Amino acid sequence: MSQGIFPVQWHEESVRLIDQTRLPAEYSVVDIHCVEDMATAITTMIVRGAPAIGVAAAFGMYLGARDFSGSDLQEFFAHLDQVATRLRQTRPTAVNLFWAIDKMSTAAQACSGSVGEIQAHLLQTAQKICADDIRTCQQIGAHGLTALPQTPEKLRILTHCNAGALATAGYGTALGVIRSAWAAGRLERVYADETRPRWQGAKLTTWECVQEGIPVTLLADTMAAHCMQQGMIDAVVVGADRIAANGDTANKIGTYSVALAAQAHRIPFFIAAPASTVDLNLPEGTLIPIEQRDPQEVYLPDTHRICPEGVEFYNPAFDVTPAQFIKGIMTEFGVFPPAQLEAAIRSHLSSGNQG
Amino acid sequence: MSQGIFPVQWHEESVRLIDQTRLPAEYSVVDIHCVEDMATAITTMIVRGAPAIGVAAAFGMYLGARDFSGSDLQEFFAHLDQVATRLRQTRPTAVNLFWAIDKMSTAAQACSGSVGEIQAHLLQTAQKICADDIRTCQQIGAHGLTALPQTPEKLRILTHCNAGALATAGYGTALGVIRSAWAAGRLERVYADETRPRWQGAKLTTWECVQEGIPVTLLADTMAAHCMQQGMIDAVVVGADRIAANGDTANKIGTYSVALAAQAHRIPFFIAAPASTVDLNLPEGTLIPIEQRDPQEVYLPDTHRICPEGVEFYNPAFDVTPAQFIKGIMTEFGVFPPAQLEAAIRSHLSSGNQG
Repeated sequence: MSQGIFPVQWHEESVRLIDQTRLPAEYSVVDIHCVEDMATAITTMIVRGAPAIGVAAAFGMYLGARDFSGSDLQEFFAHLDQVATRLRQTRPTAVNLFWAIDKMSTAAQACSGSVGEIQAHLLQTAQKICADDIRTCQQIGAHGLTALPQTPEKLRILTHCNAGALATAGYGTALGVIRSAWAAGRLERVYADETRPRWQGAKLTTWECVQEGIPVTLLADTMAAHCMQQGMIDAVVVGADRIAANGDTANKIGTYSVALAAQAHRIPFFIAAPASTVDLNLPEGTLIPIEQRDPQEVYLPDTHRICPEGVEFYNPAFDVTPAQFIKGIMTEFGVFPPAQLEAAIRSHLSSGNQG
Repeated sequence: MSQGIFPVQWHEESVRLIDQTRLPAEYSVVDIHCVEDMATAITTMIVRGAPAIGVAAAFGMYLGARDFSGSDLQEFFAHLDQVATRLRQTRPTAVNLFWAIDKMSTAAQACSGSVGEIQAHLLQTAQKICADDIRTCQQIGAHGLTALPQTPEKLRILTHCNAGALATAGYGTALGVIRSAWAAGRLERVYADETRPRWQGAKLTTWECVQEGIPVTLLADTMAAHCMQQGMIDAVVVGADRIAANGDTANKIGTYSVALAAQAHRIPFFIAAPASTVDLNLPEGTLIPIEQRDPQEVYLPDTHRICPEGVEFYNPAFDVTPAQFIKGIMTEFGVFPPAQLEAAIRSHLSSGNQG
């Protein structure tokens, strides 16, 4: 089990991020002191992964709040609204971002003290969101393990992108389930899609696996369906950036392709994500906004341009997998078929059992 | 229509190849003088694409035959067998390689002259194979055009890898159909999968399109299914490296994934290939040998390693798309549903109508 990968941590009056744009060649950290730097870190994917973005945004709200030096509460809340607006502009798809910003705003409003007391309360709230995320991931791992196929004893699990410790406050969602399977002796090997255009599978998922001694085979994205056809994959587990109420799931571009291939080969396809990724305000996945990113991610995968001038590009960062292709959604409350997700989440949230 | 892209040409007593490993950054040619250099050019993919490999191997047979300086026919044929054996070792999947080698061997055996006369006949035969391939591609283009969807008027066609002029003696198979559609005013745009791990879509297909002013959008392989879901694709046309008698088709890794996505969205999926790509000796696709290539193609996509040490790799160069996912196979004899392919090919070959 990972003891050591914590991509977002409070450290000496600033937020210490693992710089995920430099892995695996270099492990380095960046200390973030203000909300603008946090917004840039989210946009440029120094920190990425839906739950990690949420935690980073929570700390970003605190950093923004800390910058307010007056004592007028009305001015403070107006300032905090501007901070929230700035952070909301960073990335549109992962709902955890908005969830965390709202949670911080609500915490501020519920606090009846002075500006200084509210600021202190916001730091505590961000730290709690961070700590809760790790525990939530461990619960997802424990629940997810129970839903994996019973045979073979040692599973070969394919994952796409990185839904690991690096994508959360620690432990991971999809890779958390894989960690739990490894710890339980139920894992033979991870197959990691490289995940173009940003290579999160190649650069981050394999790095996490190597850190922990989990056997991992790297695949180009073109190879996943062939591996399924060859009988090399027993289950697919991926993360999520936003899950609509009906279970339709936005995740890293290419996830849908993997889901279609899994369906064709009757391989169970699971989503692993905290309840904060479920957007009960959206009835279905077609309503999820899909971020379009800089074409340079496509045409400049490393140091050389891969195509001539005159080519056009399309660079959606996410796609939506319809619920019909999803066997189960692994959450901290349990594993639910998409059709039961909304009721289960509502039930847990109303009972105050929120992770 | 392309007037100018001829990747394999007889030129001043040697074979001039466009060096496809240097495109699109640099257009350069390599002159091949002996069979060993041709074998290396095929293995390292200086020349690639099933029909182009066949043409290159035909010239390779001549270069090998030319090296024989004696006059003893028995020794000459033993030498020619060694040349054939060397060329057969280069790449296992594209059947055009074996087809061309066999065609050259048969031509040598059918020639009743001296060693010098057989050598001269082999050069003529290789030149005819080369010229025939261009005409065959133009016929594939003409037939293929008739099988494309009738609506919309201007089609958005997705292709995978490069089955263009560069993959043939000229004009191309899948990209030949696309050229024909463009010339006929039936093409809106090409969507080109980048085609990891070797980037043939990004590097070669986009380059060919830009040369001819055909609008082209480059996609990471992860994006094709999403584009189909968004209603952006009207048809898929790809090439083939070997087609079994039942229509199962081996083509560049990732083709199967595209076929599954096309099926899920009821988008017609076509193969475009000369009859020489059909291997009537193999009843079905599971019998097609799949080349495994150097893992470096996966972990070193450009200048920097994308994953840490300790990762394992799998690098199949091709996958097999079962016939059930293929609407039609576009050949120089016409367009056939997979179930009718074998009878159609046998009928044309027995009538001496071979392209």
